[in-house]
Amino acid sequence: MINIAILGLGKIGSGVAELIEKNDTLICRELQERLNVKYILDLRDFAGTPYESKVVHDIGIIAKDPEIDIVCEMMGGTKPAFEYSLECLRAGKNVITSNKEVVASFGNLLCDAARDNKVRYMYEASVGGGIPLIRTIKTAYAGIAIKEISGILNGTTNYILTQMIKEDKTLEEALKEAQELGYAEADPSADINADDTCRKICILAALCFGRLVSTSMVSCSGIRCIKLSDTEIAAKFGAAIKLVASAKLFDNGKIDIRVSPCLVTRNNPIRNADGVYNAVNISASTVGDVTLVGQGAGKFPTAGAVLSDIIDVAKHIKTGQPVQELMECADEEEICDEYTTNCMYYAAVKQDKEKVLDDFSGAEILYADGEITAFVCPDISRQTFEYLLSAGGYDVLSSLRAI
Amino acid sequence: MINIAILGLGKIGSGVAELIEKNDTLICRELQERLNVKYILDLRDFAGTPYESKVVHDIGIIAKDPEIDIVCEMMGGTKPAFEYSLECLRAGKNVITSNKEVVASFGNLLCDAARDNKVRYMYEASVGGGIPLIRTIKTAYAGIAIKEISGILNGTTNYILTQMIKEDKTLEEALKEAQELGYAEADPSADINADDTCRKICILAALCFGRLVSTSMVSCSGIRCIKLSDTEIAAKFGAAIKLVASAKLFDNGKIDIRVSPCLVTRNNPIRNADGVYNAVNISASTVGDVTLVGQGAGKFPTAGAVLSDIIDVAKHIKTGQPVQELMECADEEEICDEYTTNCMYYAAVKQDKEKVLDDFSGAEILYADGEITAFVCPDISRQTFEYLLSAGGYDVLSSLRAI
Repeated sequence: MINIAILGLGKIGSGVAELIEKNDTLICRELQERLNVKYILDLRDFAGTPYESKVVHDIGIIAKDPEIDIVCEMMGGTKPAFEYSLECLRAGKNVITSNKEVVASFGNLLCDAARDNKVRYMYEASVGGGIPLIRTIKTAYAGIAIKEISGILNGTTNYILTQMIKEDKTLEEALKEAQELGYAEADPSADINADDTCRKICILAALCFGRLVSTSMVSCSGIRCIKLSDTEIAAKFGAAIKLVASAKLFDNGKIDIRVSPCLVTRNNPIRNADGVYNAVNISASTVGDVTLVGQGAGKFPTAGAVLSDIIDVAKHIKTGQPVQELMECADEEEICDEYTTNCMYYAAVKQDKEKVLDDFSGAEILYADGEITAFVCPDISRQTFEYLLSAGGYDVLSSLRAI
Repeated sequence: MINIAILGLGKIGSGVAELIEKNDTLICRELQERLNVKYILDLRDFAGTPYESKVVHDIGIIAKDPEIDIVCEMMGGTKPAFEYSLECLRAGKNVITSNKEVVASFGNLLCDAARDNKVRYMYEASVGGGIPLIRTIKTAYAGIAIKEISGILNGTTNYILTQMIKEDKTLEEALKEAQELGYAEADPSADINADDTCRKICILAALCFGRLVSTSMVSCSGIRCIKLSDTEIAAKFGAAIKLVASAKLFDNGKIDIRVSPCLVTRNNPIRNADGVYNAVNISASTVGDVTLVGQGAGKFPTAGAVLSDIIDVAKHIKTGQPVQELMECADEEEICDEYTTNCMYYAAVKQDKEKVLDDFSGAEILYADGEITAFVCPDISRQTFEYLLSAGGYDVLSSLRAI
């Protein structure tokens, strides 16, 4: 029997407890052993529920119990989640988390502690919910250099933008609806301002490139700037507007990491991930592009990701865990400047396409109807793009990064 | 140092050798050890190349060498690939393959031999090339019941169908072009007749449901029946025609496994995988649907998949390999009858939509312009669907399974 402690019996924590019970037969077949939830640490007592007898309020009981092999931290926030995780790792417990805030802020320290104590710190559930992103990067791309990772990492904003582009709703209307459906929090700022997405791309970049970028170093803008007119124009030529996070490694070792609303062109496979779905594209020069699409959040998709980490760790309990991968912290100088680093930019202007093609070398026209010309420049800096729009006297109807 | 033998230095085998050399630094960082190709078994001698000194022609040398930990079988065909794999497993070597024919025909025996000898038989590269399908099913879905897996598993036929639907080419024209571009073999029958796809869905079903279905039990039809008129009609309402393989587990334990050209409706995420791309959708009731899209074939995508298996095995060489998962052979009675098992069917007819809605309860109209009515029945058997079309006196322009 493998004993587990769950820290925080909220939506994800209770999902994990339920999955362990419901999938007992499958888990036993996989592990040739049973998983047992021995402790639940929570502020509440859950009196009268089956969880009552397992509840403890002191992390020390869990950390000191030699029977506990795995601690699942599903608390949210960094306090006391970080301290509790560190204490458990130092006590020789494997720690599994769904808490992106802790991983993005302290992942380097927790990975260090795990390696030092010959256990593992696992965080599949912190990014992409039911999409096996982290495991794919760690295992399928082991020994393969990833060049770029980009995608839609927040279901709430994707739902809102989908409603704007497909149903002509304003951001305010779509947000209200998302709140009514339980997709958005009462305080939606972490989603709308893209803080949530920013933490996730920092975690993915750390895995892909071995360096943890502080969220404060990321050029990050949310979706408040997106107007119905932006989505209306994009819809004319089959493009979409999505909140896109991306991280790219240049040959000189510098990382271009950004979060912003983007025009997603028709050919990009993340274009079709609508509603609460997430979609991530992984590019490696040797093996080509792979896109993963799925439900990026929700009780059971996320709990399923935690369970996959539990089983991975449980399989190694007798033989010893594989060596924990580390994250070094990235320095400010390793991060590209958003204004001067080339990427793809998009604009829709009132001028005709002949003028656009004259002014922007390499521009590709996406749409032109005599009144609107929409185009992308595939390799230009924001600085140059904005300068050319301004110097050319353009009437800009919409302008965004593109992908 | 971890010593490897490569059986068969063809496209994939040489890709593996090149990747090991090219990605040496990354691999060392991952393993804290170097990978070394010690032997290459091939009929040829590769005189004058760097491979010359490694070439052997006798499998016994490899099987008997205690320094060899991992054998990569990239030979193609079952003879002598199966016997060689079995000999190496029995000699305590881990065996990694890209050979779908061997896995589909003898996977159960080779998995048994691996477990008996406390080594592993790995086959990530046998399905989906650069898409990490098998690893995802084995790890991300460990402890989660998969209900259905379906998708596009053959890049050659997907390229041909894409050219038919997007460029109005006939099957013969598109096939000729695919051959010129190197996407199709001189003898394209394994692709066109869907034998290749059939082997792959048998491997995926074995992983998802634990039972290996013989290819001879699968209802399998290729793309020769697809006419330009079929793709022209589908294009009218934004659907596509794809060669789709699917396997579904019913609550009574029976498996519905099929390979056939399908109408893929707009809402299905595999709809947009065009050209040589593969796309697979995995459904599990708890975690929702996940779709993986990528290059399903090619030298480096496939070699990258082999490398991911090598690294997985190499990480466990000192501590001992995880227990090999087994495949039992499925009995004929465990397979659903294609004619009487409900799934979704599509037809385009000359009759009007009122008649269709009268005759087919639950039909959904996809398109109607007065001349053509296109519709799907989401839950009907082929037997009933064909009977209703015939009994209703329909002029059928196109009729296919749908997904």
